[in-house]
Amino acid sequence: MAEAPIRLGMVGGGGDAFIGGVHRIAARLDGHYTLVAGVLSSTPEKARASAEALGLPRSYDTYEDMARTEADREDGIDAVAIVTPNHVHAAAAIAFLERGIHVICDKPLTSTMEDAERLAEAARASGALFVLTHNYTGYPVIRQARQMIAEGKLGSLRLINVEYVQDWLTGAAEGKQAEWRVDPARSGAGGSIGDIGTHAYNLACFVSGLTLDRLAADLDAFGAGRELDDNAHVMLRWQGGAKGMLWCSQVAPGNENALRLRVYGDRGGLDWSQEEPNSLWFTPFGEPKRLLTRNGAGATEANTATSRVPGGHPEGYLEAFATIYSEAARAIHAQRRGEPVPEDLLYPTIEDGLDGMRFVAACVRSSANDSAWETP
Amino acid sequence: MAEAPIRLGMVGGGGDAFIGGVHRIAARLDGHYTLVAGVLSSTPEKARASAEALGLPRSYDTYEDMARTEADREDGIDAVAIVTPNHVHAAAAIAFLERGIHVICDKPLTSTMEDAERLAEAARASGALFVLTHNYTGYPVIRQARQMIAEGKLGSLRLINVEYVQDWLTGAAEGKQAEWRVDPARSGAGGSIGDIGTHAYNLACFVSGLTLDRLAADLDAFGAGRELDDNAHVMLRWQGGAKGMLWCSQVAPGNENALRLRVYGDRGGLDWSQEEPNSLWFTPFGEPKRLLTRNGAGATEANTATSRVPGGHPEGYLEAFATIYSEAARAIHAQRRGEPVPEDLLYPTIEDGLDGMRFVAACVRSSANDSAWETP
Amino acid sequence: MAEAPIRLGMVGGGGDAFIGGVHRIAARLDGHYTLVAGVLSSTPEKARASAEALGLPRSYDTYEDMARTEADREDGIDAVAIVTPNHVHAAAAIAFLERGIHVICDKPLTSTMEDAERLAEAARASGALFVLTHNYTGYPVIRQARQMIAEGKLGSLRLINVEYVQDWLTGAAEGKQAEWRVDPARSGAGGSIGDIGTHAYNLACFVSGLTLDRLAADLDAFGAGRELDDNAHVMLRWQGGAKGMLWCSQVAPGNENALRLRVYGDRGGLDWSQEEPNSLWFTPFGEPKRLLTRNGAGATEANTATSRVPGGHPEGYLEAFATIYSEAARAIHAQRRGEPVPEDLLYPTIEDGLDGMRFVAACVRSSANDSAWETP
Amino acid sequence: MAEAPIRLGMVGGGGDAFIGGVHRIAARLDGHYTLVAGVLSSTPEKARASAEALGLPRSYDTYEDMARTEADREDGIDAVAIVTPNHVHAAAAIAFLERGIHVICDKPLTSTMEDAERLAEAARASGALFVLTHNYTGYPVIRQARQMIAEGKLGSLRLINVEYVQDWLTGAAEGKQAEWRVDPARSGAGGSIGDIGTHAYNLACFVSGLTLDRLAADLDAFGAGRELDDNAHVMLRWQGGAKGMLWCSQVAPGNENALRLRVYGDRGGLDWSQEEPNSLWFTPFGEPKRLLTRNGAGATEANTATSRVPGGHPEGYLEAFATIYSEAARAIHAQRRGEPVPEDLLYPTIEDGLDGMRFVAACVRSSANDSAWETP
Repeated sequence: MAEAPIRLGMVGGGGDAFIGGVHRIAARLDGHYTLVAGVLSSTPEKARASAEALGLPRSYDTYEDMARTEADREDGIDAVAIVTPNHVHAAAAIAFLERGIHVICDKPLTSTMEDAERLAEAARASGALFVLTHNYTGYPVIRQARQMIAEGKLGSLRLINVEYVQDWLTGAAEGKQAEWRVDPARSGAGGSIGDIGTHAYNLACFVSGLTLDRLAADLDAFGAGRELDDNAHVMLRWQGGAKGMLWCSQVAPGNENALRLRVYGDRGGLDWSQEEPNSLWFTPFGEPKRLLTRNGAGATEANTATSRVPGGHPEGYLEAFATIYSEAARAIHAQRRGEPVPEDLLYPTIEDGLDGMRFVAACVRSSANDSAWETP
Repeated sequence: MAEAPIRLGMVGGGGDAFIGGVHRIAARLDGHYTLVAGVLSSTPEKARASAEALGLPRSYDTYEDMARTEADREDGIDAVAIVTPNHVHAAAAIAFLERGIHVICDKPLTSTMEDAERLAEAARASGALFVLTHNYTGYPVIRQARQMIAEGKLGSLRLINVEYVQDWLTGAAEGKQAEWRVDPARSGAGGSIGDIGTHAYNLACFVSGLTLDRLAADLDAFGAGRELDDNAHVMLRWQGGAKGMLWCSQVAPGNENALRLRVYGDRGGLDWSQEEPNSLWFTPFGEPKRLLTRNGAGATEANTATSRVPGGHPEGYLEAFATIYSEAARAIHAQRRGEPVPEDLLYPTIEDGLDGMRFVAACVRSSANDSAWETP
Repeated sequence: MAEAPIRLGMVGGGGDAFIGGVHRIAARLDGHYTLVAGVLSSTPEKARASAEALGLPRSYDTYEDMARTEADREDGIDAVAIVTPNHVHAAAAIAFLERGIHVICDKPLTSTMEDAERLAEAARASGALFVLTHNYTGYPVIRQARQMIAEGKLGSLRLINVEYVQDWLTGAAEGKQAEWRVDPARSGAGGSIGDIGTHAYNLACFVSGLTLDRLAADLDAFGAGRELDDNAHVMLRWQGGAKGMLWCSQVAPGNENALRLRVYGDRGGLDWSQEEPNSLWFTPFGEPKRLLTRNGAGATEANTATSRVPGGHPEGYLEAFATIYSEAARAIHAQRRGEPVPEDLLYPTIEDGLDGMRFVAACVRSSANDSAWETP
Repeated sequence: MAEAPIRLGMVGGGGDAFIGGVHRIAARLDGHYTLVAGVLSSTPEKARASAEALGLPRSYDTYEDMARTEADREDGIDAVAIVTPNHVHAAAAIAFLERGIHVICDKPLTSTMEDAERLAEAARASGALFVLTHNYTGYPVIRQARQMIAEGKLGSLRLINVEYVQDWLTGAAEGKQAEWRVDPARSGAGGSIGDIGTHAYNLACFVSGLTLDRLAADLDAFGAGRELDDNAHVMLRWQGGAKGMLWCSQVAPGNENALRLRVYGDRGGLDWSQEEPNSLWFTPFGEPKRLLTRNGAGATEANTATSRVPGGHPEGYLEAFATIYSEAARAIHAQRRGEPVPEDLLYPTIEDGLDGMRFVAACVRSSANDSAWETP
């Protein structure tokens, strides 16, 4: 029988905030959640207006109030999505975790390392789940890439090249989306390296299964008067001997959202681009390149299991995001039933969030130290 | 304030039927519908089991029963999605239209021309809306293509080349999806020409704004023992002097769902492929090719208005499908308020459905008549 | 030991004529020819000036004079390249063939069917070779495509879709290249169908090994005041049951020289585009698509044998053209040694030229007869 | 009037050596050279057999002998192509330069820095020309990229990302091509960084017009028992503030010869891939991406001037290589006439060669010094 929908609250995401709308669609897409409460803005009037526009049953002025009140209600929220600027993540998430409400939180984890540690403690101490929306891990062919590497299809890994290239900060930072992302107080010590570099790093780890040993970084802020990096070059040394490069940029004209991952082993290679997310190049060394597709010929179980429609019917960003939400739903449902979280779920956790924060911090340290090798 | 969700019923779409699941996600994605009732299969036990699996409040054994009962309820369905094999469309749709329940119906319209005419009469007579899910018209860059042509960016149109190529019938037809599609009794006189050729034809008309004058067709059934065409070659003559070709196939190995539209005028050309649905090639004659993107640089209002996320964050098949549903929702909401259907809505109607049926019939006639030119 | 170079003459190709320069590079590229004589223009002064500019030892005013004089010289030309407008091909070629001088002739064969028959007779009667430069058959991966089909890799062929799309006649025909191509007196009864349609048709035959049974064509002249077709739509029925479509156009903005061939059988499919000539898509039905490359992994003997450099080092149009010249050289060298022409040579012959002429004539007839099916 | 062909000798390039054959075609393609002498192998019998197979008039056992003898002949060679393994370049080139014979030399310049300095002295002292075949600078759209940047189309440069990725050393190094390239005695201190990294570096400098300030490198030899690097990660700091990354690899399965250059300024970006060498992506910031083509719409003078055939007729690796040869020919012809070398010639010189050697040396130093920033 169908599970009852999960009652969801939201912190942030009012008005035309990009990522709030994304979370709402992602929650809705597979039918596992109902959005019933929110504090959609830190400005109470805006919060109320946004809640009304969305037809939300319950609107609050502060997340503390929402956490407290919802925890006390019989029909209170089961989970909350946190989609504020980074500096609010920790305090908001802790308020819910402490009351046993599951948290689905946008990335990067927090704006400071201290906040990250504090949040991690709270998450570990709580019986509730903490899910970090590194949404790119939700793409079916990314799941296949991970499975293929785990099964040894590439042999022993040697190289990981990951890049995440955008152009929207080429000129001055304008608009609400841009403003807080270039403000150290709200964003944290990393600019592009925090905003998108963490996605790139997380994806590389997720697919390869490797752990980073050391990095050497060169961060730049090309935009006039910009305090945070808008471009980062990083050399990578993975445990076990693989090497790599990571490039993230928000000042490269002609790139909308060009996240690309390439992984090479002694037996084969993989190449994936987020802007063509339904296919994956696979080359067994010495053989012709093969274009694997989402839910098409050559799809593995991990690919098929996260696909909604047949190959050739493109799924995209929202579907990948929804997969994170739907995996969270499976975990929440399992917990409801008193069962352990299913082992096949791959949503990112608090540990991935911490790992990303350490990565950003190490990049900042290395860059400040003339690109010396740093351990994250 | 947010509009109250539209109560939706569904006929067909039980078990693992591909298109039923698509309609449910499309209805859910933008949050305008709640699925509350259904007769998900023509086999009552299956219908009930499917309804239970989906958590549907009300399950019926027949669409007649559902139409009657829901029409009588205070909280009965506002609209119904019809996702059965083609031969059921007409009778089911009429049952709801006659009771003032809006119909969202999968394509092609019906299995016979007689059914199509009957349904068209019912739709015209009804105060309820009839929406046909030629979903490919929902892609944002397709909307931009239509707008650009209407604005004269290509000059006077000369050529339209449209193809829709798949490979899943290369071997024997297996499984539920395949079976009814190759059965004249359930599918109608057209095989691939009805199943996907109508999509291609509809898309060409939608984007170009042209009306077909005559066609010459050559239909084949390559699959062993297959009664209906699995490949169709069609030459097109449009009113006003433009020419074109349409090719649809389900026996071309290496093609998953390769719908492609090219339109050329005396001032420029457009080229779009469904499997890369977030971009559109535009060449003003004598200038370099430009790659326009969904909600990216160069996006027109029609493109932006149907986009959910920024460029570089791929939207896909389900989002385009959802756009049809959401446009239907806007029409339904307008009707609720006693207002006329907004003029900017572009969802396909009963007339598009009839047009598609005439196209299929003309192709079948032409092919039977040694590819003589036929008027649809 | 190295063979002595073949002494080559040229008729046409003076000034900045596009195709004359191409033939000269093609002759030179693999080192088998030395250009020693020519009548590079029908205007004697231009012929002399062009010969001088190219450093040609011997320049003539007429091809008759060149044929006679060179045939008498001890060190006269072994072969002649004919690169004039179409209406000159027959008379010029016959003049050389009758004197035992090998002819390498540009396509289409001639401007009229009568000329074609006359030339064919002369070619069959002559001991000299006749080579037609359908240069696209010289691409290494096209050779592989032919080999794969011959070896049954696609199974039984069902579909051939070939298109050759350009845009340079979108506006008025300007310049020397354009002028004679739109003039029936110099070009023949076919416009685009003769200029590029013959290439497309030849390529389809070359790769598939099939023989055309019937065709139905719809030809148009969109350019203002244009007498010859600048666009052609053709439906194809091949002997043995395969079907197909051919589209050629010179009025499709955004297409430079977009020749594309797709072939599908019951076991697999091939897809090739001339503008990316170093790769070939191959899909065994039910398996992932594979990108075969020129002289790369998966290359067959036919591919490797016509490649000059390793995969990833793009070869192009001139190299493919040179392959036709170099195969002609191997035939000429064999004849010199009194040996038969090697069996592995695949350059197009007088029969291919005649076949192309019949194809054009049938297209023109069919189009004039309301697209009735015609036998070429 | 046509210039008399340049008499060319060759050192190295016997048997089936890849690069020797390339130089011969490149020299022949535009008709400026005649190959008349050579010492095609260091093994005299092989040298003679190769010369005979190629129909070379004069074969020598040593380059010293060839240099001396040809310099004394009335009809001796004007220029020599040096295509040996790297460790022979310096001594051979000097032997010819000292006798006033022009040298066209393969890259990298030499195997040691000392040799490079010695050769540079000889080149500067000689009246003869020294041309280094960084052939990728010969591509027409690369010429356009250089011109656009010089004209400010990208604004102030911020980022250069260049990569040159191959896979042929993924397994063990086998065959003649591989052997000397992995041998420090014959190749020099750099493996992949010398073999292909120098191409990538040279291309970045050529197109951007920038001068490298510092670099930080991480070199690896993944192949079992390999002494020289087969993968290199390099971070770049250019004079004036631009940054960049360079990646070269010969162990990345699925990459044949994937040289790619991306350059970004504050007004636009360029993106070029060697395996699709006839096109160039250009994005003026805030506008749609444009696909510029070789000799097509939007081609600048620098593009057109180095093109042989119209857009859509792909030129490739050999043509780009031939452009270097043909520019050298124009310089040689100018010198013959007592004129200065034309200012528009862009072939790489001894200074480019020295620059490349310093780059390799700095990479090796940096990598040995834990990736510390080094000045080349």
